[in-house]
Amino acid sequence: MNSFKDKFSEYISFTEENLKRYNSTLPSMEAQKNLIDAMNYSLEAGGKRIRPVLVYAFCSALSGDYRIAAAPAAAIEMIHTFSLIHDDLPAMDNDDFRRGKPSCHKAFGEAMAILAGDALSVLPFEIISNDNDLSDAQKIKIISYLAKAVGREGMIGGQVIDMENETRNDVDEANLRNMYRHKTGQLIAVSCMMGCICAGADEAKIQAAAEYGFRLGLAFQIVDDILDVTSTTEELGKPVGSDEEENKTTFVTLYGVEKAQEKANAVTDEALAHLEKFGNDSFLVELTEMLLKRKN
Amino acid sequence: MNSFKDKFSEYISFTEENLKRYNSTLPSMEAQKNLIDAMNYSLEAGGKRIRPVLVYAFCSALSGDYRIAAAPAAAIEMIHTFSLIHDDLPAMDNDDFRRGKPSCHKAFGEAMAILAGDALSVLPFEIISNDNDLSDAQKIKIISYLAKAVGREGMIGGQVIDMENETRNDVDEANLRNMYRHKTGQLIAVSCMMGCICAGADEAKIQAAAEYGFRLGLAFQIVDDILDVTSTTEELGKPVGSDEEENKTTFVTLYGVEKAQEKANAVTDEALAHLEKFGNDSFLVELTEMLLKRKN
Repeated sequence: MNSFKDKFSEYISFTEENLKRYNSTLPSMEAQKNLIDAMNYSLEAGGKRIRPVLVYAFCSALSGDYRIAAAPAAAIEMIHTFSLIHDDLPAMDNDDFRRGKPSCHKAFGEAMAILAGDALSVLPFEIISNDNDLSDAQKIKIISYLAKAVGREGMIGGQVIDMENETRNDVDEANLRNMYRHKTGQLIAVSCMMGCICAGADEAKIQAAAEYGFRLGLAFQIVDDILDVTSTTEELGKPVGSDEEENKTTFVTLYGVEKAQEKANAVTDEALAHLEKFGNDSFLVELTEMLLKRKN
Repeated sequence: MNSFKDKFSEYISFTEENLKRYNSTLPSMEAQKNLIDAMNYSLEAGGKRIRPVLVYAFCSALSGDYRIAAAPAAAIEMIHTFSLIHDDLPAMDNDDFRRGKPSCHKAFGEAMAILAGDALSVLPFEIISNDNDLSDAQKIKIISYLAKAVGREGMIGGQVIDMENETRNDVDEANLRNMYRHKTGQLIAVSCMMGCICAGADEAKIQAAAEYGFRLGLAFQIVDDILDVTSTTEELGKPVGSDEEENKTTFVTLYGVEKAQEKANAVTDEALAHLEKFGNDSFLVELTEMLLKRKN
């Protein structure tokens, strides 16, 4: 059995390899090459690749061969990347930088960034439906959960809640939890669910993985809120203090750093408790703790 | 057997009914309600509903019950609507009106329009995967063809070609045909293909339907080019002469109205020839001719 770090590196390499492979095609015209360049620019901008790692980790925890999950793992990272490209647009968060590099619309222009995001929102369904390892029943289950996690009742619904919260002064913890559950939690939960489906798990296991994922997603987001005030721009790779500047309500503005950290710890403990149904898989336990203690 | 007009009306009513049904959900928060309102605003803005009608017509032409195709028919209209919402954005075509009504970003703001388009790009995959009438094998085939028709090698690829053509003076007929084939042709072709898949057709029939669809799509686009100079703003529901104003290359700028009309007739004849494999289905023949002779 590999150590946590070896396994983590193996998952990341496999992710990078597949993202390249799935987004390569023979463009029939120069114009399409530019689109694919814009998609790859953002896909390859790095990031933690937490979502694909979760897909692989849940598949492995249920004794599945994680390589069978290549398509859904790449798919979830494409969806995440699409959401970042559109989030950064001038009409949205208007961020000129992402992970220390110019954001997609800064590098390729606004129209191309909109289209690159659009193309990354549908490519996941192409690669899952064309996969040769999964059964039709598995693919349909994955697509059904994935599309719902992305759409109006999922991540995009969460972005709308976030946007409308900016005009409000009465955002409380319940609202914030609901917003994070949709905006971040849904994609993280569905990553865990897809790993289970790839391993042939039953619905009870799939739902247990979702429960873990929602809690991990919330802990992840509370830690984000904390790092925005305690980290440095260098460590974080993006400007710190942006939440306060944008007048955003976060766990830190509601409770202060110390109590927010307590809440992150408590939600992480809840997440860990759900791993009992996965035999307290050591990789998943270490991953959960690593995300709580991360510095960026 | 119903007359063409009765059948056409029946297909349109069924489309409208299903678009409403598929986009209704119980929003958990007010914010999501606003997103669904923006999606419905554009979905209900009208349009010809040609794509869903083609799905139903091909299913019927192969003796299938067209009602089985409700999900893919709604899906293709959602994809079309998503593309119009994003096309109209300031960074893209910057159109303030669509079908005589303020465009989505004028009515709901730019951020909400981006998100409404995004949500309409994934909802199709949710409703197809959750459909109760089609088999898993049919759903996977539909999703695979649909996602490809939308993405970098399909409609979105075509939008990129269109965008880059605006900066060029050397756009010739081959380029224009390729751009139209991607930007318009792919969605029309996949509509025909999905109707065949719903009827349980084999791959040869599916490909024959695609061949018809690409030609219908091209004829449709050449007629569009002609109407831009021969119609009135009232008849067309949008400003005429916009192609010339935007310095766009079209079949009319390349060949003039008369020769463009000859080309539209010739491509329509090619489309009709492909209907032989569908027993020259009378509804499809009439639909093809109606689209050639349309005034808006």
